[in-house]
Amino acid sequence: MSSRRGSPSGRVPPAVNSDPASPQNFRAIDVIRKKRDGLALSVSEIQFFVSAYTTGDIPDYQVSAWLMAVVLRGMTRAETAALTDVMLHSGEVLDLSSLGARRVDKHSTGGVGDKTSLVLAPLAAAAGVTVPMISGRGLGHTGGTLDKLEAIPGFNVNLTVAEFRRILETCGCAMIGQTAEIAPADRKLYALRDVTGTVESPNLICASIMSKKLAEGIDALVLDVKTGSGAFMKNEKDAAFLAELMVETGERMGKQVVALITDMDQPLGSMVGNALEVAEVVEVLRGAGPQDLRELCIELAGWMLHLGGVADSVDEGKSRSAKLIASGAGLDKFCQMVELQGGDPRTIDDPGKLPNAQHTATIFSKKNGYISSLQCEQVGAACVILGGGRERKEDSVDAAVGIVLHKKVGDAVSIGEPLATVHYNAEARADRAKTLVEESYQIEDSPPREKRPLIHRIIRSSGVKN
Amino acid sequence: MSSRRGSPSGRVPPAVNSDPASPQNFRAIDVIRKKRDGLALSVSEIQFFVSAYTTGDIPDYQVSAWLMAVVLRGMTRAETAALTDVMLHSGEVLDLSSLGARRVDKHSTGGVGDKTSLVLAPLAAAAGVTVPMISGRGLGHTGGTLDKLEAIPGFNVNLTVAEFRRILETCGCAMIGQTAEIAPADRKLYALRDVTGTVESPNLICASIMSKKLAEGIDALVLDVKTGSGAFMKNEKDAAFLAELMVETGERMGKQVVALITDMDQPLGSMVGNALEVAEVVEVLRGAGPQDLRELCIELAGWMLHLGGVADSVDEGKSRSAKLIASGAGLDKFCQMVELQGGDPRTIDDPGKLPNAQHTATIFSKKNGYISSLQCEQVGAACVILGGGRERKEDSVDAAVGIVLHKKVGDAVSIGEPLATVHYNAEARADRAKTLVEESYQIEDSPPREKRPLIHRIIRSSGVKN
Repeated sequence: MSSRRGSPSGRVPPAVNSDPASPQNFRAIDVIRKKRDGLALSVSEIQFFVSAYTTGDIPDYQVSAWLMAVVLRGMTRAETAALTDVMLHSGEVLDLSSLGARRVDKHSTGGVGDKTSLVLAPLAAAAGVTVPMISGRGLGHTGGTLDKLEAIPGFNVNLTVAEFRRILETCGCAMIGQTAEIAPADRKLYALRDVTGTVESPNLICASIMSKKLAEGIDALVLDVKTGSGAFMKNEKDAAFLAELMVETGERMGKQVVALITDMDQPLGSMVGNALEVAEVVEVLRGAGPQDLRELCIELAGWMLHLGGVADSVDEGKSRSAKLIASGAGLDKFCQMVELQGGDPRTIDDPGKLPNAQHTATIFSKKNGYISSLQCEQVGAACVILGGGRERKEDSVDAAVGIVLHKKVGDAVSIGEPLATVHYNAEARADRAKTLVEESYQIEDSPPREKRPLIHRIIRSSGVKN
Repeated sequence: MSSRRGSPSGRVPPAVNSDPASPQNFRAIDVIRKKRDGLALSVSEIQFFVSAYTTGDIPDYQVSAWLMAVVLRGMTRAETAALTDVMLHSGEVLDLSSLGARRVDKHSTGGVGDKTSLVLAPLAAAAGVTVPMISGRGLGHTGGTLDKLEAIPGFNVNLTVAEFRRILETCGCAMIGQTAEIAPADRKLYALRDVTGTVESPNLICASIMSKKLAEGIDALVLDVKTGSGAFMKNEKDAAFLAELMVETGERMGKQVVALITDMDQPLGSMVGNALEVAEVVEVLRGAGPQDLRELCIELAGWMLHLGGVADSVDEGKSRSAKLIASGAGLDKFCQMVELQGGDPRTIDDPGKLPNAQHTATIFSKKNGYISSLQCEQVGAACVILGGGRERKEDSVDAAVGIVLHKKVGDAVSIGEPLATVHYNAEARADRAKTLVEESYQIEDSPPREKRPLIHRIIRSSGVKN
């Protein structure tokens, strides 16, 4: 470990500028103390602190103390907007205005089996909206869009900005990973938050998400804020707080933003695992697939089309999206994007050609009754154990493994009926994963009295109408 | 700056031991998160975290996040005791039991004009108590015992443990600085706290003080916890909280501890500045000197003699101390210690031989009335500006400069009467210091209605009687 280097022993924090009359005469220690004492920082204090960290003039150990103070003391909305702004402008902000069409993106706060991005980008592009999507990898028990795309043999998520722009021009959508040029302050802060217990702050989460998304040069953004046992925000109140913060931050920056608070108390759809989820995306684009996933895709697409100016209302956007699925236009657009990004389109025509696990093991019900709950985080953790996600950042991901859920909450089940099938390659990992999946099912004698809604709430910036 | 090295980017925090069944299988991130969430850490978690930091296996940036969580979430008394214990045992714990006599030390939380250690160590040694005193340097606006001792030409505070022991055997008291062997965890944590805004935590202050003091191998400890405008704890409630914490922590470790909460709303005595304060110490040991300083020295010495087992009560200890001053035995002991530590004893016989500033400037009253307050922190800051303290750790200290206070709170004053005299060497610094001192005096028409007590409260561990 390199901790012995860069030790603070015997040093005092430097004043960045020695002129006491200058407004730039900030000291890191004073910014830390102010936040520690629960006071709101000024725009220029936040600017100084984050910029100096990005350039390496403030060390990690001062920033991590500040991050912990932010987690425990919070931030005002004005501070959050200022932080987002300085992180956004720490790198390149794409200008895609020459593309003509309105640019709309969607972002999810992360869940299990959440593969809507792969449906939505081609669907919105088929409707004439430009979707410049910069996505992330799996985090903890949740999956990541980039890992799913890379389950398609040959698919390249590491494009240059010039290549990204060219594909957007041709196809209307492209999906890549964060480049070094986009929001470098976020990259650095995120890596530090990850190892210092300072991820869990709505203000920091908002600034991290919004700085990256606004760097895409979009006009509008649809946010899918997850709540429930498989989400980072377990309860709806926390999810709503984060959603409001992101909507307001986007609004302050002149963007149209809508946030849908959607259910993540059980996995979305039936498939969890990278290649399995790509196959399920193809099903949905073919007009089939599980009801909850189809419904959420249509809802989110409806908003994207509406904010993208190609539908006068959300309802019109939803019916157009349904038609684009029925006509096959969405699937064609997906194939086009896959091919342009180097992926093998034959795996889309025949998802059986996607990576397959060597073994499967099915879990059968030991009871008659109804599924009353399906612990979502456990299912996600099982997929990570199988190798479908990362326990450490440097781990590689096995695209083929995952879990197919045959039963979901509310379904009736009889003794001996299959609950779920685990797809695995490494025998040693299968047992722990199977146990986790089995234990994640709760079966009761009577059906659950209340059904959790798929969409809990919708929060919009002031300019956005239905 | 070395901040770019040791960056956390792309790394995950290591498990120190990879055996999941081992109780040592702790991860730094989990300890940080637990404290962030306001939960109490176990003894073994604290042990793991602080030990791994001391050996360099946990980086600064994780520890600073944890320190901020401790500042904002607090610690239980059991956690504070565990932290003290692991910091104490991070280095050498002296065994001075072969010296025979009971070993008692005194520690002050720091103030302005607070020179009692230089009176107390020889006084208690003259009474037959062993005083193995490890002291610190000035911090912020407060003075430091080591800086005062070094105003005596030749005085060496950097002794080896063997030399320290030899002088204690001969003389009964010795005064040195913290060695590399004593509480290295504290040295490292203190340096980090100083630059990350995490000094202000009673739990961390307690562990820092007590780990160093208990490493001296003492039987009992007298704490002088300052409160008022010149103290780190401005109000009595905070001072009492810290005092109780330190008394309880000492008690848990089998030591007799008493804490006196004493006034630091104005400087103690009349002299502020290193050589000036040594001269005032000699005055007190000669039976003269200002009333407040004499009274506090007798009170603290009374407790040291009582806890040292050479007086049956505090009152007996106080009267013995007064006699040791009257007989000159205290002054003789001070001269003996100065000589044994390489200092020039002629400067004690004739304090005029101590370093003298080149210039003096006297501040005269512009009003008739009574001194209603004397802003203590400002007087301390003025001394730092003159060069009598450090603005940066690497600064050297000018022993000769300082402030002589002719008037203190409650004194009557007429127009044109001297309030204070500034002793300075650098012309450029004198004006700012003079202004600060002048502004620190508040003069009202009538005498202050209430006099602040010198001793606010006494807090004792359960085994300690009057």
